[in-house]
Amino acid sequence: MSFHHLFEQHASTLNAAVEANRNRLFHAHWPEPPSGKIYGETAQEEGLQAFKAALNNAFDFPHQKGSEGTVGAEHSPFGFPLNISYPAYSADVLIANANESLKQWKKLTVTERAGILIECLERASKHFFAIGFSTMHTTGQGFIMGFQASGPHAFDRALESIATGYMALDAFASSAHWTKPMGKMQVDLKKEYHVRPKGINLTIGCSTFPIWNSFPGMFASLITGNVTIAKTHPSAILPLAICIQSFQETLASLGLDPHIIQIAIDSQEKPLTLALAEQKDIQTIDYTGSSAFGNQLEKLIAGSTKELFTEKAGVNCALIGEVNNLDAVLDNIAFSLCLYSGQMCTTTQNIYVPKSGVITPEGIISFDDICLKLKEKVDALVFNEKMGPGTLGALHSPAVKSRIEKAKASGLIIIRDSESVSQQGFDNALSCSPLILKADSAHQEIVHEEWFGPISFMIPVEDISTGIKVMADSIKQHGALTALLHLNDEGLMNQAVDQLVDAGVNISFNLVGPIWVNQSAGFSDFHGTGANPAGNASFADLSFVSRRYNIIGMRRP
Amino acid sequence: MSFHHLFEQHASTLNAAVEANRNRLFHAHWPEPPSGKIYGETAQEEGLQAFKAALNNAFDFPHQKGSEGTVGAEHSPFGFPLNISYPAYSADVLIANANESLKQWKKLTVTERAGILIECLERASKHFFAIGFSTMHTTGQGFIMGFQASGPHAFDRALESIATGYMALDAFASSAHWTKPMGKMQVDLKKEYHVRPKGINLTIGCSTFPIWNSFPGMFASLITGNVTIAKTHPSAILPLAICIQSFQETLASLGLDPHIIQIAIDSQEKPLTLALAEQKDIQTIDYTGSSAFGNQLEKLIAGSTKELFTEKAGVNCALIGEVNNLDAVLDNIAFSLCLYSGQMCTTTQNIYVPKSGVITPEGIISFDDICLKLKEKVDALVFNEKMGPGTLGALHSPAVKSRIEKAKASGLIIIRDSESVSQQGFDNALSCSPLILKADSAHQEIVHEEWFGPISFMIPVEDISTGIKVMADSIKQHGALTALLHLNDEGLMNQAVDQLVDAGVNISFNLVGPIWVNQSAGFSDFHGTGANPAGNASFADLSFVSRRYNIIGMRRP
Repeated sequence: MSFHHLFEQHASTLNAAVEANRNRLFHAHWPEPPSGKIYGETAQEEGLQAFKAALNNAFDFPHQKGSEGTVGAEHSPFGFPLNISYPAYSADVLIANANESLKQWKKLTVTERAGILIECLERASKHFFAIGFSTMHTTGQGFIMGFQASGPHAFDRALESIATGYMALDAFASSAHWTKPMGKMQVDLKKEYHVRPKGINLTIGCSTFPIWNSFPGMFASLITGNVTIAKTHPSAILPLAICIQSFQETLASLGLDPHIIQIAIDSQEKPLTLALAEQKDIQTIDYTGSSAFGNQLEKLIAGSTKELFTEKAGVNCALIGEVNNLDAVLDNIAFSLCLYSGQMCTTTQNIYVPKSGVITPEGIISFDDICLKLKEKVDALVFNEKMGPGTLGALHSPAVKSRIEKAKASGLIIIRDSESVSQQGFDNALSCSPLILKADSAHQEIVHEEWFGPISFMIPVEDISTGIKVMADSIKQHGALTALLHLNDEGLMNQAVDQLVDAGVNISFNLVGPIWVNQSAGFSDFHGTGANPAGNASFADLSFVSRRYNIIGMRRP
Repeated sequence: MSFHHLFEQHASTLNAAVEANRNRLFHAHWPEPPSGKIYGETAQEEGLQAFKAALNNAFDFPHQKGSEGTVGAEHSPFGFPLNISYPAYSADVLIANANESLKQWKKLTVTERAGILIECLERASKHFFAIGFSTMHTTGQGFIMGFQASGPHAFDRALESIATGYMALDAFASSAHWTKPMGKMQVDLKKEYHVRPKGINLTIGCSTFPIWNSFPGMFASLITGNVTIAKTHPSAILPLAICIQSFQETLASLGLDPHIIQIAIDSQEKPLTLALAEQKDIQTIDYTGSSAFGNQLEKLIAGSTKELFTEKAGVNCALIGEVNNLDAVLDNIAFSLCLYSGQMCTTTQNIYVPKSGVITPEGIISFDDICLKLKEKVDALVFNEKMGPGTLGALHSPAVKSRIEKAKASGLIIIRDSESVSQQGFDNALSCSPLILKADSAHQEIVHEEWFGPISFMIPVEDISTGIKVMADSIKQHGALTALLHLNDEGLMNQAVDQLVDAGVNISFNLVGPIWVNQSAGFSDFHGTGANPAGNASFADLSFVSRRYNIIGMRRP
């Protein structure tokens, strides 16, 4: 059985992805607008109906064998239970299925695997709208964001991982005729280089970006010859379930073992993650989530041959020092704080401002005025009935609401209070506007914690240089995925680059307009650097793929 | 200060190395014959005199500051003390020097670093003969091997690491103009991608291949922007000392901080390795040596951000099943057992033979006859006065001699006894011929240990298929760097490839003539696979370089 025709069919897709990836250019294989013109006029309605049909029903994986009992207790942050029951699989069954499928998968060439994986993605992309609604109703993202984050953006990140894996495996020839001249004679050897996957990958999904954060590790593993088990977060199963059901259908229809990509579903009460991670055949683990559990995984793999890729908690920072257009800057920051109620791993938490104020073309604006203006900008967005609720979405869990209460009770001055937000059509939605507090150097312990959710702190610093140093120190100690700076002076910008590159964080300067610090673009922005306490993985650098396989040489006369 | 001219000067060297590396072709930038025609008619004599001048003297590093006291107690395995004293450096001094130099080194571009590093290698290559004699008289290698292993072969491995690092850093653009079309508008960002080295590299050298095993990690670290501290083995300091003295001279002459490449020298009595490895600024560690110490390092780095690259002990295996020319096969194996008295990490230890004998064009040759013929082939080489002593060299340490005695005392049948070998001109040389023992399934515990030195075991197996399985199982459990098989049947060869790729070992089939299983060719043979208990590193795959840096993005309108 050859799959070369699939490679041929998708070669232009792969080549365009590799090209963009190499050159870090804008590239979107799947367009981000949830538009009828692109995806078909009936696609949205069909997606909604598909989502509704899944509610109060049993979700099946006809191609994944060995289930025992059912599991599932998802609840929409917009205020209703999904009542979907999924088949449960034990660790033993998952491992046995995976090991069997690995025999087949690892024998394929990288080009065959690339063709097959792109085919899987293309077919699953027909479900973008259903995936979008199910993301909305498991994570709390507004629909547009759910569509983009779990659909085109996540699928492009998968394609990026395929492209990087392909680049890595393509870096060295897979065979060679080696001729060593030795004076009047020579030695001839035929050589082959076999890619040996590490084994079974376990990807541990998170509750807020169930697809976007899982696909990179899954597809980096798959392109390099590993099979994968995607462990969904108990509160966000459906989006990945739709994808994996589709992937398995595609694999089966191609005559391949559908267990190359498996789903593992557990509950808060009976978690399966550690039992899986401990299995000796699990050789790579991708994890997105709390630092506490991440550290537990680090201990688990210590001294073993397992490779662990992490994205843990961090404290993202911004510094507003010098601006050309204060309104545009604060509009931009306000939107980034509101987007999905600050529940992105890339959302700014700590905003540093020189205590002497911000330099603008209109003169210096004081710290307090900056706080007030940011409050007004957030108000304007929150109270914009057309834009506000959809941008905010809902809180993915009551724990976020409790965190807001805890922050309010911290004793810090409230610059902007968080209030309930109504979401049309969803009376029981758990939706809140951003809380902005004022902190200073006396509140180090508070601001150096991650306050995941719509909670941010305005913090005065002595001056811009001090602010840069404070940011760099915070990132070295507490980790971060993003750092945003508003500066004009090239000397100060260079100073920031020096210190923040050293601290190991991705840097954004002077963002205004429709581009926000929380956004990370596939093929162009490496997501995560792997260089600070927020995690060791970067989507998708060479280390992200090359740690998943080894090369075994064979030589013969 | 720009170093672009050095890149231009060495561009063809780098390009040829990258080309060979990609295509896994034969390539030797530095020719391996220690020939006057290549290296100059007086080069050998000058090298010998340089080596002699170093004896009974103080060896200085004029460009490495902060030494306190002296250290050094090398003893030639050919029977005399070197009496060389070296400056000693404390961990604190080494780290302070390294951190200071890192500020300069990490700012250079990869092309600048490549040019500088190749210049360092080119200038140091003028010392190949002195390096060869000092390798002979620290490791016990015969002169030719000392010259090749520490000279051209090691320098080519360094160039290979530079080439792989260059390939990795060249895989993605270092800047981009990103334009996202958004309907009637667009977003434009300028992006830069900064290579952030992990920090300071510590390369822990071994006693048998002080340069060959150290250069890959050192140069992979250097090309990716890290500075390096090479910790020499207390019994094999001089070869690396000559190189690093030269490197530092080159760096200083270019106006660079010579501490970019430092040497660290300790003694058996006062080891420095752990004190260095524990330093927080040491972020990558390359290690070649015993499994016991390797495991200690693994514990030390567990849960930290340090990356550890290891080559530990293993049990290399061979299987003689079917041959076309038994004499040629046994000549080849005999040579590989004798070469440097079996003190290569790649030397075969366990030789499996079907108990029914080996299939040859002359009929089946019994297990016992194979043992006898191999003994005769080893005898013929050992007792060849012209070839024998130089091939065997000397035992790098009395511990190897004790190991031979221990093996003799194991109660196994002696096929070939080890005897003293005289080395002309070196009456006190510690030189011994190979010991060959017969083991069987009752002696699993013995043969599954590594017996580093001129000790090997002939082991009967049920049949060829069983032999393949026994090898694969042994490698999975005990690790190996090499597996040699003599087979003709393509079905059996495929079976071997399947099982041994899975076991994660490099495979050689049917070697005869001047190519031996212990040889691993730079640019073509990945040395080590990283996929079995013998170590996690492979010279020089993408993982070997990409784990030494991170990429930090910067974007601005």
